[in-house]
Amino acid sequence: MAFDPQTLVYDHKGLIPCIAQAAGTGEVLMMAWMNAEAVAKTLETGRVTYWSRSRQAFWIKGETSGHVQKLVDLRVDCDRDCLLAVVEQEGPACHTNRRSCFYTAVRDGEEVELMTPIA
Amino acid sequence: MAFDPQTLVYDHKGLIPCIAQAAGTGEVLMMAWMNAEAVAKTLETGRVTYWSRSRQAFWIKGETSGHVQKLVDLRVDCDRDCLLAVVEQEGPACHTNRRSCFYTAVRDGEEVELMTPIA
Repeated sequence: MAFDPQTLVYDHKGLIPCIAQAAGTGEVLMMAWMNAEAVAKTLETGRVTYWSRSRQAFWIKGETSGHVQKLVDLRVDCDRDCLLAVVEQEGPACHTNRRSCFYTAVRDGEEVELMTPIA
Repeated sequence: MAFDPQTLVYDHKGLIPCIAQAAGTGEVLMMAWMNAEAVAKTLETGRVTYWSRSRQAFWIKGETSGHVQKLVDLRVDCDRDCLLAVVEQEGPACHTNRRSCFYTAVRDGEEVELMTPIA
Protein backbone atom coordinates (compact mmCIF):
# COMPACT_ATOMS: atom_id res chain seq x y z
CA MET A 1 0.00 0.00 0.00
CA ALA A 2 1.33 3.45 -0.88
CA PHE A 3 2.17 5.54 2.17
CA ASP A 4 0.48 8.91 2.56
CA PRO A 5 1.53 11.12 5.54
CA GLN A 6 -2.04 12.48 5.63
CA THR A 7 -3.30 9.06 6.79
CA LEU A 8 -1.41 9.35 10.08
CA VAL A 9 -3.28 10.43 13.19
CA TYR A 10 -2.19 13.86 14.38
CA ASP A 11 -3.09 15.61 17.62
CA HIS A 12 -5.12 18.82 17.88
CA LYS A 13 -2.01 20.78 16.90
CA GLY A 14 -1.44 18.64 13.81
CA LEU A 15 1.55 16.87 15.36
CA ILE A 16 2.61 13.26 15.83
CA PRO A 17 5.37 12.08 18.19
CA CYS A 18 8.44 10.50 16.61
CA ILE A 19 10.89 8.37 18.60
CA ALA A 20 14.47 8.28 17.28
CA GLN A 21 16.35 5.03 17.83
CA ALA A 22 19.98 4.39 16.91
CA ALA A 23 20.46 1.80 14.20
CA GLY A 24 22.72 -0.98 15.38
CA THR A 25 22.73 -0.33 19.13
CA GLY A 26 18.96 0.12 19.44
CA GLU A 27 19.50 2.95 21.91
CA VAL A 28 16.50 5.28 22.22
CA LEU A 29 17.95 8.73 21.55
CA MET A 30 15.10 11.23 21.78
CA MET A 31 11.46 11.93 21.07
CA ALA A 32 10.25 14.97 19.14
CA TRP A 33 7.26 15.98 17.03
CA MET A 34 6.48 16.06 13.33
CA ASN A 35 3.65 17.46 11.26
CA ALA A 36 2.59 15.87 7.97
CA GLU A 37 4.99 18.03 5.99
CA ALA A 38 7.92 17.11 8.27
CA VAL A 39 7.10 13.42 7.75
CA ALA A 40 7.15 13.97 3.99
CA LYS A 41 10.41 15.96 4.13
CA THR A 42 12.04 13.26 6.27
CA LEU A 43 11.17 10.61 3.70
CA GLU A 44 12.14 12.78 0.72
CA THR A 45 15.49 13.94 2.07
CA GLY A 46 16.53 11.01 4.27
CA ARG A 47 17.37 13.62 6.93
CA VAL A 48 15.14 13.46 9.97
CA THR A 49 13.11 16.66 10.12
CA TYR A 50 10.93 17.53 13.10
CA TRP A 51 8.58 20.40 13.80
CA SER A 52 9.93 22.63 16.54
CA ARG A 53 7.06 23.51 18.86
CA SER A 54 9.07 26.30 20.52
CA ARG A 55 10.23 27.91 17.27
CA GLN A 56 7.13 26.92 15.22
CA ALA A 57 9.40 25.99 12.34
CA PHE A 58 10.87 22.92 10.67
CA TRP A 59 13.80 21.52 12.57
CA ILE A 60 16.18 19.62 10.36
CA LYS A 61 17.98 17.76 13.11
CA GLY A 62 21.66 18.72 13.19
CA GLU A 63 21.35 21.58 10.70
CA THR A 64 23.14 23.96 13.04
CA SER A 65 24.91 21.51 15.39
CA GLY A 66 26.04 19.04 12.75
CA HIS A 67 24.47 16.26 14.83
CA VAL A 68 22.38 15.00 11.96
CA GLN A 69 20.10 11.99 11.90
CA LYS A 70 20.24 9.98 8.70
CA LEU A 71 17.03 8.03 8.27
CA VAL A 72 17.52 4.27 8.06
CA ASP A 73 13.91 3.17 8.48
CA LEU A 74 10.62 4.85 9.36
CA ARG A 75 8.01 2.83 11.24
CA VAL A 76 4.36 3.55 11.99
CA ASP A 77 2.58 2.12 15.00
CA CYS A 78 -0.68 0.14 15.06
CA ASP A 79 -2.82 3.20 15.85
CA ARG A 80 -0.93 5.33 13.33
CA ASP A 81 -0.45 7.98 16.01
CA CYS A 82 3.25 7.45 16.76
CA LEU A 83 6.36 7.09 14.58
CA LEU A 84 9.68 5.37 15.16
CA ALA A 85 12.64 6.61 13.15
CA VAL A 86 15.62 4.26 13.07
CA VAL A 87 18.57 6.56 12.44
CA GLU A 88 22.29 6.87 12.07
CA GLN A 89 23.05 9.55 14.63
CA GLU A 90 26.06 11.78 14.10
CA GLY A 91 27.47 12.74 17.52
CA PRO A 92 25.18 13.35 20.49
CA ALA A 93 21.40 13.46 19.93
CA CYS A 94 20.71 15.61 23.00
CA HIS A 95 21.14 19.39 23.15
CA THR A 96 23.06 18.80 26.41
CA ASN A 97 25.69 17.03 24.30
CA ARG A 98 24.80 13.63 25.69
CA ARG A 99 24.34 10.67 23.39
CA SER A 100 20.67 10.28 24.37
CA CYS A 101 18.11 12.62 25.92
CA PHE A 102 17.13 9.80 28.32
CA TYR A 103 20.19 10.15 30.54
CA THR A 104 18.35 10.31 33.86
CA ALA A 105 17.08 7.16 35.58
CA VAL A 106 14.78 6.89 38.58
CA ARG A 107 16.22 4.29 40.95
CA ASP A 108 15.09 3.69 44.52
CA GLY A 109 13.24 7.00 44.44
CA GLU A 110 16.30 9.00 43.40
CA GLU A 111 17.28 10.57 40.08
CA VAL A 112 20.55 9.12 38.82
CA GLU A 113 22.53 10.54 35.89
CA LEU A 114 23.63 7.76 33.54
CA MET A 115 25.62 9.71 30.95
CA THR A 116 27.93 12.70 30.88
CA PRO A 117 28.19 15.15 28.01
CA ILE A 118 30.49 14.14 25.16
CA ALA A 119 33.64 16.27 25.40
CA MET B 1 17.93 14.14 44.09
CA ALA B 2 14.64 12.58 45.14
CA PHE B 3 12.28 11.97 42.24
CA ASP B 4 8.83 13.55 42.35
CA PRO B 5 6.38 12.73 39.52
CA GLN B 6 4.92 16.24 39.89
CA THR B 7 8.18 17.72 38.56
CA LEU B 8 7.62 16.16 35.14
CA VAL B 9 6.17 18.28 32.33
CA TYR B 10 2.66 17.18 31.39
CA ASP B 11 0.58 18.32 28.43
CA HIS B 12 -2.70 20.24 28.68
CA LYS B 13 -4.47 16.98 29.54
CA GLY B 14 -2.02 16.21 32.34
CA LEU B 15 -0.32 13.45 30.35
CA ILE B 16 3.25 12.56 29.42
CA PRO B 17 4.26 10.09 26.69
CA CYS B 18 6.07 6.95 27.81
CA ILE B 19 8.04 4.78 25.38
CA ALA B 20 8.36 1.09 26.33
CA GLN B 21 11.59 -0.61 25.28
CA ALA B 22 12.41 -4.30 25.76
CA ALA B 23 15.28 -4.95 28.16
CA GLY B 24 17.97 -6.98 26.48
CA THR B 25 16.96 -6.66 22.84
CA GLY B 26 16.38 -2.88 22.95
CA GLU B 27 13.34 -3.28 20.73
CA VAL B 28 10.91 -0.35 20.95
CA LEU B 29 7.59 -1.97 21.80
CA MET B 30 5.00 0.80 22.09
CA MET B 31 4.28 4.32 23.22
CA ALA B 32 1.43 5.22 25.54
CA TRP B 33 0.56 7.95 28.02
CA MET B 34 0.82 8.38 31.79
CA ASN B 35 -0.44 10.95 34.24
CA ALA B 36 1.44 11.74 37.45
CA GLU B 37 -0.45 9.06 39.37
CA ALA B 38 0.31 6.43 36.73
CA VAL B 39 4.00 7.31 36.98
CA ALA B 40 3.83 6.89 40.76
CA LYS B 41 1.93 3.59 40.48
CA THR B 42 4.45 2.27 37.94
CA LEU B 43 7.32 2.98 40.32
CA GLU B 44 5.49 1.66 43.39
CA THR B 45 4.29 -1.59 41.84
CA GLY B 46 7.01 -2.31 39.27
CA ARG B 47 4.17 -2.99 36.80
CA VAL B 48 3.97 -0.47 34.00
CA THR B 49 0.72 1.47 34.36
CA TYR B 50 -0.51 3.87 31.70
CA TRP B 51 -3.50 6.19 31.53
CA SER B 52 -5.96 5.02 28.89
CA ARG B 53 -7.15 8.06 26.95
CA SER B 54 -10.03 6.12 25.40
CA ARG B 55 -11.27 4.60 28.66
CA GLN B 56 -10.15 7.51 30.88
CA ALA B 57 -8.86 5.01 33.42
CA PHE B 58 -5.64 3.50 34.64
CA TRP B 59 -4.35 0.83 32.33
CA ILE B 60 -2.17 -1.69 34.11
CA LYS B 61 -0.55 -3.14 31.01
CA GLY B 62 -1.41 -6.83 30.68
CA GLU B 63 -4.01 -6.86 33.45
CA THR B 64 -6.58 -8.52 31.19
CA SER B 65 -4.32 -9.95 28.44
CA GLY B 66 -1.57 -11.26 30.69
CA HIS B 67 0.94 -9.39 28.52
CA VAL B 68 2.41 -7.53 31.45
CA GLN B 69 5.35 -5.17 31.45
CA LYS B 70 7.67 -5.54 34.42
CA LEU B 71 9.58 -2.32 34.98
CA VAL B 72 13.35 -2.69 34.77
CA ASP B 73 14.33 0.97 34.60
CA LEU B 74 12.47 4.28 34.22
CA ARG B 75 14.23 7.12 32.43
CA VAL B 76 13.34 10.80 32.12
CA ASP B 77 14.42 12.92 29.16
CA CYS B 78 16.29 16.24 29.24
CA ASP B 79 13.12 18.33 28.95
CA ARG B 80 11.30 16.14 31.49
CA ASP B 81 8.39 15.81 29.04
CA CYS B 82 8.95 12.22 27.88
CA LEU B 83 9.61 8.94 29.69
CA LEU B 84 11.36 5.75 28.63
CA ALA B 85 10.39 2.56 30.45
CA VAL B 86 12.81 -0.33 29.99
CA VAL B 87 10.66 -3.41 30.55
CA GLU B 88 10.49 -7.15 30.58
CA GLN B 89 7.59 -7.74 28.20
CA GLU B 90 5.49 -10.86 28.66
CA GLY B 91 4.24 -11.98 25.23
CA PRO B 92 3.28 -9.42 22.57
CA ALA B 93 3.14 -5.74 23.50
CA CYS B 94 0.68 -4.83 20.74
CA HIS B 95 -3.08 -5.36 20.94
CA THR B 96 -2.79 -6.95 17.44
CA ASN B 97 -0.73 -9.70 19.10
CA ARG B 98 2.50 -8.56 17.49
CA ARG B 99 5.65 -8.23 19.53
CA SER B 100 5.83 -4.48 18.89
CA CYS B 101 3.28 -1.86 17.81
CA PHE B 102 5.83 -0.55 15.27
CA TYR B 103 5.34 -3.38 12.80
CA THR B 104 4.80 -1.23 9.70
CA ALA B 105 7.74 0.29 7.84
CA VAL B 106 7.64 2.87 5.06
CA ARG B 107 10.02 1.76 2.33
CA ASP B 108 10.24 3.26 -1.17
CA GLY B 109 6.90 4.96 -0.58
CA GLU B 110 5.11 1.76 0.35
CA GLU B 111 3.89 0.40 3.68
CA VAL B 112 5.56 -2.91 4.49
CA GLU B 113 4.49 -5.20 7.33
CA LEU B 114 7.52 -6.43 9.28
CA MET B 115 5.87 -8.74 11.83
CA THR B 116 2.99 -11.14 11.95
CA PRO B 117 0.83 -11.77 15.01
CA ILE B 118 2.18 -14.29 17.49
CA ALA B 119 0.12 -17.48 17.16
